[in-house]
Amino acid sequence: MPKEGITPRAQDYSQWYLDIVQQADLADYAEVVKGCIVFKPTGYAIWEAIQRGLDDRIKATGHVNAYFPLLIPKSFLMKEAEHVEGFAPEVAEVTRAGGEDLAEPYVIRPTSETIIGYFYSKWVRSYRDLPLLINQWANVMRWEMRTRPFLRTTEFLWQEGHTVHATEEDAERETLLILHDVYADFVEKEMAIPVIKGLKSEKEKFPGALRSYCIEAMMQDGRALQAGTSHNLGQNFARAFNITYTDQHNTIQYAWTTSWGVSTRLIGALIMTHSDDEGLIIPPRLAPTQVVVVPIYRNDAERSVVMETVQRMTAEWKGRLRFKIDDRDNLTPGFKFNEWELKGVPIRVEIGPKDIEKGSVAIARRDQPGREGKSFVPQDGLTDRLTALLAEIQQALYQRALTFREDHTADVATYDELKQQVERGFARCYWAGTTEDEKRIQEETRATIRCIPLDQPQRAGRCVYTGKETSQQVIFARAY
Amino acid sequence: MPKEGITPRAQDYSQWYLDIVQQADLADYAEVVKGCIVFKPTGYAIWEAIQRGLDDRIKATGHVNAYFPLLIPKSFLMKEAEHVEGFAPEVAEVTRAGGEDLAEPYVIRPTSETIIGYFYSKWVRSYRDLPLLINQWANVMRWEMRTRPFLRTTEFLWQEGHTVHATEEDAERETLLILHDVYADFVEKEMAIPVIKGLKSEKEKFPGALRSYCIEAMMQDGRALQAGTSHNLGQNFARAFNITYTDQHNTIQYAWTTSWGVSTRLIGALIMTHSDDEGLIIPPRLAPTQVVVVPIYRNDAERSVVMETVQRMTAEWKGRLRFKIDDRDNLTPGFKFNEWELKGVPIRVEIGPKDIEKGSVAIARRDQPGREGKSFVPQDGLTDRLTALLAEIQQALYQRALTFREDHTADVATYDELKQQVERGFARCYWAGTTEDEKRIQEETRATIRCIPLDQPQRAGRCVYTGKETSQQVIFARAY
Repeated sequence: MPKEGITPRAQDYSQWYLDIVQQADLADYAEVVKGCIVFKPTGYAIWEAIQRGLDDRIKATGHVNAYFPLLIPKSFLMKEAEHVEGFAPEVAEVTRAGGEDLAEPYVIRPTSETIIGYFYSKWVRSYRDLPLLINQWANVMRWEMRTRPFLRTTEFLWQEGHTVHATEEDAERETLLILHDVYADFVEKEMAIPVIKGLKSEKEKFPGALRSYCIEAMMQDGRALQAGTSHNLGQNFARAFNITYTDQHNTIQYAWTTSWGVSTRLIGALIMTHSDDEGLIIPPRLAPTQVVVVPIYRNDAERSVVMETVQRMTAEWKGRLRFKIDDRDNLTPGFKFNEWELKGVPIRVEIGPKDIEKGSVAIARRDQPGREGKSFVPQDGLTDRLTALLAEIQQALYQRALTFREDHTADVATYDELKQQVERGFARCYWAGTTEDEKRIQEETRATIRCIPLDQPQRAGRCVYTGKETSQQVIFARAY
Repeated sequence: MPKEGITPRAQDYSQWYLDIVQQADLADYAEVVKGCIVFKPTGYAIWEAIQRGLDDRIKATGHVNAYFPLLIPKSFLMKEAEHVEGFAPEVAEVTRAGGEDLAEPYVIRPTSETIIGYFYSKWVRSYRDLPLLINQWANVMRWEMRTRPFLRTTEFLWQEGHTVHATEEDAERETLLILHDVYADFVEKEMAIPVIKGLKSEKEKFPGALRSYCIEAMMQDGRALQAGTSHNLGQNFARAFNITYTDQHNTIQYAWTTSWGVSTRLIGALIMTHSDDEGLIIPPRLAPTQVVVVPIYRNDAERSVVMETVQRMTAEWKGRLRFKIDDRDNLTPGFKFNEWELKGVPIRVEIGPKDIEKGSVAIARRDQPGREGKSFVPQDGLTDRLTALLAEIQQALYQRALTFREDHTADVATYDELKQQVERGFARCYWAGTTEDEKRIQEETRATIRCIPLDQPQRAGRCVYTGKETSQQVIFARAY
């Protein structure tokens, strides 16, 4: 039976997504501010968990945080040719301030390569100042035409790393370190979302980058979602902003820079990887609340007995589990079950007078709705059991998503096969086409090259479009 | 001997402050973005420590975080009469976006009462929805004429809490809870800055508030710095934005709201409370790095012996102390000592071949520069000794600041005494004057009523300005 307020996925995936956002109370439309949303407490708590997991990894790999201005002089955007083309059409401009018209407008940062490049040109003097490894947590703004909660909003939250290196090798190593040890590691281990690591095609790379790497995930409708990008910017921004250093031989050299970011769209990826027709599903390692305890009672006498057991039982959970006791008096257990299912809490523990008699509790796994995921277990050893179960759920969610992706990925040898495959998932194929070919395919199929996977085949084959022999494989898919 | 690059406080306190900001590498001027600074990694790490301490307390008192849009329709600002007067003159306006002129400009939030009020009016329906207790970490912008790093910048970072309550009593309780249990508790315990809790005068209160409470600290030049404010907004914003709820008797009522904030100006307060002519001093509980170890050696053989001891010694520090080992090879110990003094690390541990022979290390306390703060202690039991010393330094810094404030606070009975006292610190006096009187005093002395302390005297006295009998005392001071 479909849940009230949630359109089944099979019926309308797009509407299902919007229903989950609303029913799990993740966001509200800020209809008075074009294309913006309010990140409501339940949604923002997920972002805080994402921030913590990423920030730990960003710092563990030697980076430090800083904060640069929100406003960028408009002329800065013009200094890198591809960059201005990519971002100038979608900026918001500040033209008045303090009651006066400004001589030069500012733009609200769509991304900060330019303003940070300006400061780096002041800070970097010698090879001894390198590498410079800085990250920023910030809001950014891109005036998008079509928006969608978390996936594409005018204002969004993200982290953007910006680093400076002495050599191309150092910059490339940094770009890949972030891709592997920060982004893929976090998204796969904490968010239980399997990703394909790869290189972007020329058409899809970041405006101003030499090479863009990415992690791509598959959503439940078979479409791809770019979950993070890491760019080797080459010397493009160093030349535009004059970031130079004196090397060991006292020669002035242009530096090599990188930038990399993930954003609140990861919340969208989370929803569309794991959730079901019952509501949100959050993987245990990321979940702000891992276990919710719902005490069951019909009167004050029962309430006091049950709550006493609940308090005793949960005393040793502190510091080991993130949990909530839902002791709201004005709501029925059924209402509470529904609410926590909607909000995606991995495990629900139910306990009533009969359970207390038996020394047991009922456990319900969010990832297995209905009877299948329900069991009765002894109160003795419950903490260890829950800890183990959380790990099991984490693994199960990852495995389920991986199996889904594998089931919806196929090797295609002809353009016709490609057209069919992108209707249901990822099409893996040999590719030796041009950017123009890629554009034509996009027009005809709405699919683009999501990435050139880092894992490449041993043998050569024939390009799916041109028939040319090549050793390069790519993934075509429709994307969010 | 004054330190290179730092103007002594006695010579020019204002320049000393700017020198500390630069020499401790806390911020850079963003001269290309009016009145903005870059929060450099060393400065931003202090803000991260402040965020952590405050966020813990904000959550422990039942609040959750959320995120609202950066942009506010300009018309929203006009809905509360005092509020528009206070903020409209200093906003930055977005008039173009996506290449087109906007029909209605947006302002970049100078504070978020209006936009949040708009959403609260949608979210609050019944008394069951109350209290609504939300906090936001965000950047805000006020187009200031005269700016100063951390103390007053066009863009700054802060948290702003916004809550909704059913009754005036609930709103008042919330306002004071934040003042006592979040702001004063954090600033005194973690930052070691003693504060006076009080009420703002009508002249100084937040535009649109019923009552503004604050914590006021004294800087080393005797001037006051407002370190945090907590506002009972009454029903002003509820009426302006139609935030109503249905009460238990099914009657529609206007709600009561509060707002409260502290900002990156706390970093300025930190500098001007504790630091000295040698550089920054950070209290141990807040310090991103509490202990720095400087190994001393003249050759590779000595280096390997010393580093082995350092590794062994610090192995048990992990999880107990926040520490750094400064093993940079291209710098002299003297250079390193100077750098960590400038950056305010509470304890320096020096260890060389002679110390290893003796089984000891040298310890230098940052709060007691020179010989006074230096001692030689055994390596055995060092972790406990350092832990105890950090607590001692924390307490000593608080006590020093408190003694300074007490020495620079005086009761004044006449306007002449007040004039003299505000040259050196806080003037405490009876007050029964008007807002006009306060303005006149400000013109003549540059001092204002910093607050009406919550601690009030038992007996009445005569107003310092009007001579009227009153039981109300206030603090006059010049302020940052």
